[in-house]
Amino acid sequence: MPHTDLIFLGFGNVGQALARLLLRKRTTLEERCGITWRVVAIATGSHGAALDPAGIDLERALALAEAGHDMGALAARAVPQDRLELIRASGAHVLFENTPVNYESGQPAIDHIRTALQAGMHAITANKGPVVHAYQELSELARAQGRCFFFESAVMDGAPVFALWREALPAAELRAFRGVLNSTTNLILTLMEQGRSFDEAVAHAQSIGIAETDPSGDIQGWDAAIKVAALVTVLMGVPLKPNQVERRGIENLTLQDIEAARAAGRRWKLVCEAERTSPGVRARVHPQQVEPSDPLYQVMGTSSAVTFHSDVLGALSLVEDDPGPHTTAYGLLADFINALRQA
Amino acid sequence: MPHTDLIFLGFGNVGQALARLLLRKRTTLEERCGITWRVVAIATGSHGAALDPAGIDLERALALAEAGHDMGALAARAVPQDRLELIRASGAHVLFENTPVNYESGQPAIDHIRTALQAGMHAITANKGPVVHAYQELSELARAQGRCFFFESAVMDGAPVFALWREALPAAELRAFRGVLNSTTNLILTLMEQGRSFDEAVAHAQSIGIAETDPSGDIQGWDAAIKVAALVTVLMGVPLKPNQVERRGIENLTLQDIEAARAAGRRWKLVCEAERTSPGVRARVHPQQVEPSDPLYQVMGTSSAVTFHSDVLGALSLVEDDPGPHTTAYGLLADFINALRQA
Repeated sequence: MPHTDLIFLGFGNVGQALARLLLRKRTTLEERCGITWRVVAIATGSHGAALDPAGIDLERALALAEAGHDMGALAARAVPQDRLELIRASGAHVLFENTPVNYESGQPAIDHIRTALQAGMHAITANKGPVVHAYQELSELARAQGRCFFFESAVMDGAPVFALWREALPAAELRAFRGVLNSTTNLILTLMEQGRSFDEAVAHAQSIGIAETDPSGDIQGWDAAIKVAALVTVLMGVPLKPNQVERRGIENLTLQDIEAARAAGRRWKLVCEAERTSPGVRARVHPQQVEPSDPLYQVMGTSSAVTFHSDVLGALSLVEDDPGPHTTAYGLLADFINALRQA
Repeated sequence: MPHTDLIFLGFGNVGQALARLLLRKRTTLEERCGITWRVVAIATGSHGAALDPAGIDLERALALAEAGHDMGALAARAVPQDRLELIRASGAHVLFENTPVNYESGQPAIDHIRTALQAGMHAITANKGPVVHAYQELSELARAQGRCFFFESAVMDGAPVFALWREALPAAELRAFRGVLNSTTNLILTLMEQGRSFDEAVAHAQSIGIAETDPSGDIQGWDAAIKVAALVTVLMGVPLKPNQVERRGIENLTLQDIEAARAAGRRWKLVCEAERTSPGVRARVHPQQVEPSDPLYQVMGTSSAVTFHSDVLGALSLVEDDPGPHTTAYGLLADFINALRQA
């Protein structure tokens, strides 16, 4: 079987975790899935790019990245400056798109993915932007090209929320869902229950790499709203933009609110929910006090959870603990294997 | 596309629920999955059998079954008395094996499935017997025939525990799992927490059709042990028989035990667990007091849950509420669609 050639756009925490996972799973992929692979191009944000049709030494690429050195040392030939040209010049079979997410436009990831699909590649991303801003266009293009546009890690990291519905729950109709989908706010609420102030909790979430330098996207519920929009768009088949999700964040919750809930035996959670209504879908992100009997009550720290209500099963919940770049990387790997299985 | 011809062996609660689901989903299957189907044979336990290569009127079959009448009225031609002959004579493409489960030998379901696979059919069952007693033989035969032997509903009803690993978590290694997998005992423990005696709780579980007339298989932990053996065999790749699972049931738990746990803020659960050890797998079913922070604490009544520990994700849990014949039927339908997708 010929090698499957890979291009990495973006080689930060997630891209590097994927590279390490690919190396660790090399034998498993070959023996269990019949997949052999090599990386023919890597483009970083600020440390250059490399292109080698004969295969880049991925361990060396990781060493360069960890040392903060330029990838140019690995380039066997001149690397096009333009990313779209680089995608085309790579001749790869699979694009891993891991550039920084742009919530407002989904760019430049959308252009990267479109170019890859047009060139006959599978396109795989952990990036929510292209899902909420271009799902219909990109999935139709993928279908027309006989390729896959997969994005398992865009919601709940590597927990297989999209594959669950695509592969494991065929012919089922999703009627509603409810969950906790934003790790940063859930960690902040957990820390506030332990008595830390809002600002202390935010600072801690930043110090362990969970929250951004500007955490407003998480705290105001935007990240959660984007995930809700992605789930509604893909799993319910109803295109929904993040600004169509009713949204309230946790920015106005005080330690007094947290304490009052605790005294009443409850906890605050930033709840994500959506349900079909007769004309379409009602989708919301809002802080809610949940009872101990609520499946979200025990979702603590950076864990996330979603409960699905369908026309064929009782409530079905998926809960993920301890997410991180390595679990995001696994979602990308699972997409890669599933794309090759289906092609 | 030609019709996919189906044979039903067993037409009790689950077989009838599957028939109703197939009828309800007829348009979805055709439009979304490209599947058209007809039932060419039905064999019941005590109400005869029917065989019609041109297709049996399934609504009429349901009406006969609900009225307790003989299926013979639907037979277009002589029906072989021998079930294996009937399978071969049906010329079907898919066998749904829903005869009563035999925990000790897995028979006659194993013979039914073997015969179907040998005749080039996919074989689908909700029956745990063939999984724990003949998984290796039947899955190898299926592979050699280019067909599928699927059994999603054998554990956690229609919740996609096997498909999750087969389809959605490729190249992942399951290291351990822990869960509540037997509905009857969990319901009994829930009722005892509400103050009912063990015998009252058993009687209630029987009255709503959850517990068998002889509930010892559930209460002594055998059903749970069989499910553990099935998960270990299939998901961990380590053949395990139910009698190799360390097993204690709930038969010795008293209302005093339940009350003492409650006073300490805990609950009794019949916990199923397995973990890889250096030579193989250690698997156990045993009553355990769980804390409120334990994911099993909130699994009440007939709900079930399992938490998976793998080499690629943090703890990943699947929780199913409100199981019943209709959810078992959905697991069979999902297997059917997945078998045709993969063939």
